[in-house]
Amino acid sequence: MSDRFHTDEADLAAGRRIILPGDESHHLIRVCRARPGHRLRVFGNGLEFEAVLVSGGASDAEVELGAALPTVPPPAIPLDFCIPWIKGGRTEFLVQKLTELGVRRLRIFHAAREVVKADDGKVERLRRVALEAAKQCGRADLPELGAVPSLAAAMEASTDSEAKFLLYEEERTRRLGVAVSERLQGVPPVGICVASGPEGGFDRGEVESVASKAEVVSLGGRILRAETAPIAAAAVILAAAGEM
Amino acid sequence: MSDRFHTDEADLAAGRRIILPGDESHHLIRVCRARPGHRLRVFGNGLEFEAVLVSGGASDAEVELGAALPTVPPPAIPLDFCIPWIKGGRTEFLVQKLTELGVRRLRIFHAAREVVKADDGKVERLRRVALEAAKQCGRADLPELGAVPSLAAAMEASTDSEAKFLLYEEERTRRLGVAVSERLQGVPPVGICVASGPEGGFDRGEVESVASKAEVVSLGGRILRAETAPIAAAAVILAAAGEM
Repeated sequence: MSDRFHTDEADLAAGRRIILPGDESHHLIRVCRARPGHRLRVFGNGLEFEAVLVSGGASDAEVELGAALPTVPPPAIPLDFCIPWIKGGRTEFLVQKLTELGVRRLRIFHAAREVVKADDGKVERLRRVALEAAKQCGRADLPELGAVPSLAAAMEASTDSEAKFLLYEEERTRRLGVAVSERLQGVPPVGICVASGPEGGFDRGEVESVASKAEVVSLGGRILRAETAPIAAAAVILAAAGEM
Repeated sequence: MSDRFHTDEADLAAGRRIILPGDESHHLIRVCRARPGHRLRVFGNGLEFEAVLVSGGASDAEVELGAALPTVPPPAIPLDFCIPWIKGGRTEFLVQKLTELGVRRLRIFHAAREVVKADDGKVERLRRVALEAAKQCGRADLPELGAVPSLAAAMEASTDSEAKFLLYEEERTRRLGVAVSERLQGVPPVGICVASGPEGGFDRGEVESVASKAEVVSLGGRILRAETAPIAAAAVILAAAGEM
């Protein structure tokens, strides 16, 4: 999986020539020291192709696409996650893990109880983390990733998720796995959205701000760290859908 | 959860006075700067008590146990994990996460494809990581933790796990969640043991060495990192058992 390069180009097809993005060109030419004729793989928008390097500019490497390759399909029910900015590099960590697990969309919000300064540079950095994780895990698309002001804004933005869940440590009985399995018994939802809290947990006002839109659920009696709960939740949902 | 201190003492009971271990005494007296009369919580062996500091030696703090407190029960079906030594602090990371998730026993083995030097100091360090994670997540016991030479030795040592699974990326169809759910339909196994591989994946010889003892399963088409797969697996099993 180490020789996979990403493109944002639309309409990928065998025989087309495309210019790789600057970061990817740099990696291919400067880090991998590829020369024209070098074989690689190019992926984007859920497709993947064999490719050959045609001309090796370190900021604009040109490749010619060859045969289409089989890809790992995304989860049948798309998963969106709303996660807080968390200190100590753990937002990056979560973006990496949720990308590996096939999440479609990641919305990062400012939690009431954890103040982390976020700027455009940080979001850009998270996109690079997601790109590296996508390369490594073999998925052929990138998660959509954006910052939003609050939990409520994050949940509202997920308009195409029919089932929304809020992980809340003060919920004692209703388990996420049970709630998801029940939702999957009838007509499956067209999307599932899960929100998780910061290190100190959600503020009660935050929970109330989305209580009419999301079902409040638990991941069991032990208190999971802010960076553990979303990973566990994604696995629980994928297993309920028969994908894990 | 920040004022929880661990003891290895057996026969904990209200009214008993005990000496906290050296590390815990140091933390209570030097870091928290507790003085006699300070109220804390003491846990161990699945029990937890209110307690009061009686005398404050920085290496031998004495506390008197008060009322027993409700505890978070461990998973009804005990979970054992066999995980490899992985570079970059990721064995520590996995010990932390699997402790949070309630795992009973962690056996750390040397994988064929990842050479990491392990010594007694490293195991001792992992025990401290597990202790900190237990304190934070609220569990009242510590996972049993030990190093073993190989995957086969790790799996064999788990004699009281009736259901054993090997996470293997070359398995394409059989999902862990499905396999566990099937095992839970009849008489539930008295224990479940899961083995996961290093960054480069299991060597085929390793897989063959345990093929007669464990069912080979998949966590889906995306390739999860060595530190992601066991977390996902624990969540999948806890959800199948209705605990997550």
